Amino acid sequence: MAGKFIVVEGLEGAGKSSVIALVESAVKAQGHSTVTTREPGGTPMAEAIRECVKQNWQETVVEETELMLMYAARAQLLANVIKPALADNSWVIGDRHDLSSQAYQGGGRQIDADTLVALRDITLKGFKPDLTLYLDVEPAVGLERARGRGELDRIELAGLGFFERTRARYLELAGADDSIITINAMQPMADVHSDVRKALEHYLSC
Amino acid sequence: MAGKFIVVEGLEGAGKSSVIALVESAVKAQGHSTVTTREPGGTPMAEAIRECVKQNWQETVVEETELMLMYAARAQLLANVIKPALADNSWVIGDRHDLSSQAYQGGGRQIDADTLVALRDITLKGFKPDLTLYLDVEPAVGLERARGRGELDRIELAGLGFFERTRARYLELAGADDSIITINAMQPMADVHSDVRKALEHYLSC
Repeated sequence: MAGKFIVVEGLEGAGKSSVIALVESAVKAQGHSTVTTREPGGTPMAEAIRECVKQNWQETVVEETELMLMYAARAQLLANVIKPALADNSWVIGDRHDLSSQAYQGGGRQIDADTLVALRDITLKGFKPDLTLYLDVEPAVGLERARGRGELDRIELAGLGFFERTRARYLELAGADDSIITINAMQPMADVHSDVRKALEHYLSC
Repeated sequence: MAGKFIVVEGLEGAGKSSVIALVESAVKAQGHSTVTTREPGGTPMAEAIRECVKQNWQETVVEETELMLMYAARAQLLANVIKPALADNSWVIGDRHDLSSQAYQGGGRQIDADTLVALRDITLKGFKPDLTLYLDVEPAVGLERARGRGELDRIELAGLGFFERTRARYLELAGADDSIITINAMQPMADVHSDVRKALEHYLSC
C-alpha cells in the first residue's frame, strides 16, 4: 500500500483535534491526498456501533462487550475506509486507533492482556499505523479542558484513577514502540504544534 | 445456580417459536418460574446491537464484525438476564445461544475455529446451557416456511449453500455433545412436539 496511516492519540482534552488539523495540512502540503477517520466510528455501521458504546445505558455494560464493540467498529473502518484509502495512495489520519483500546480498556479498565491480544489479532491481523503521535497530558488537565466543552459521556465519567491508569499504559506502550512519538501536550498550544511539526518533518524526510 | 438454562436452536423456519412455548409450559408445569430470551438481543443494549447486525447495510459487513457483535450482545444478555435469573431459581428458555454462532458463523460463513473459540472464551468463560434442543430441518424446507412469514433479512439472503453448511455444523456439534438433543423438525408439528415432550420428560426426570 502506497499511502501512510498516521494516528493521533491521547486522553480527552489532550488537544487531538487541532493536532489532527495540523497533520492533515502538513501531509497535504507534501502533495498527498488525505482521508481523516475517527474511532470508534467512521462508516455508517461503525457510527451505529459507536452510538451503542457511548450511550448511557441503564444496564451494566460488561467490559468485554465494550471491547468487542470497539473492535467491531474498527474492523468496519479498516476494511471499508482505511485500507481502500491507503491502496488508493491517500494518507489516512486517524483520530484514535488500536492504541486507544490498549490504553483505555487494557490500562484503564484493566482487562487482561490475553483478551486484548485475541481481539486485536481477530480484527487487525497484523495491520498497524505507520506513525502514531501520542499527546501526553495529565488526566486532571485534560479532563478540565474536556469539561469546558460540555457534558462528559459514560467513559469520561469513569473517574480520575481510570484516566491515570490509561495514561500510564499509553506512556508504557509509547516507550516500547519506535513508531509511537510522545508529545508533551501540557505545553502552550504553539509549542505542542511546533513539536508535532518537528516529528512530522523527521518522519516525512525518512 | 439453581435454575436451568434450556436453549432451542435451529435454522430459520425450523419451528423454534412453537417449541419454545411448549418448553416454557412444560417447565412451568413443574412449578418453576421461567424467563425467555432471544439472541442476539434480550436487553436494551443487546437489542440495539441486534439492530446493528440485522440491518441491511450498504457497506461490506466484515465477518469478524458480525461475530463480535453477536458475542457483545451475548455478553450483555448473560450478565444482565441469564445469570441473574438462574441465580434467582428461574429456568431460562433461550431462543438461540452460542450454538447459533458456532453453526452460522463457523459452519455457514466458515470463520476459522480459533476465532470462534477465542470470542466464546472471552464472552462465556466456560458457561454453557444445561440442555439444548436442536430442531433439525432441511434448509429448503425451513426457508420456504420462513418466506411465508414475510421479508428475509440480510443473513437469510445468504443463499442455500450457507444454510446447508450451517445445518451440517449443527448436526456435527449435536452429535458430539450429550447435552444437545436433535429433534426431527420436518415431521408434522404434533410429532415434533411429542418428541420435544419426550426429551424434556427424560431431562426433567434425571
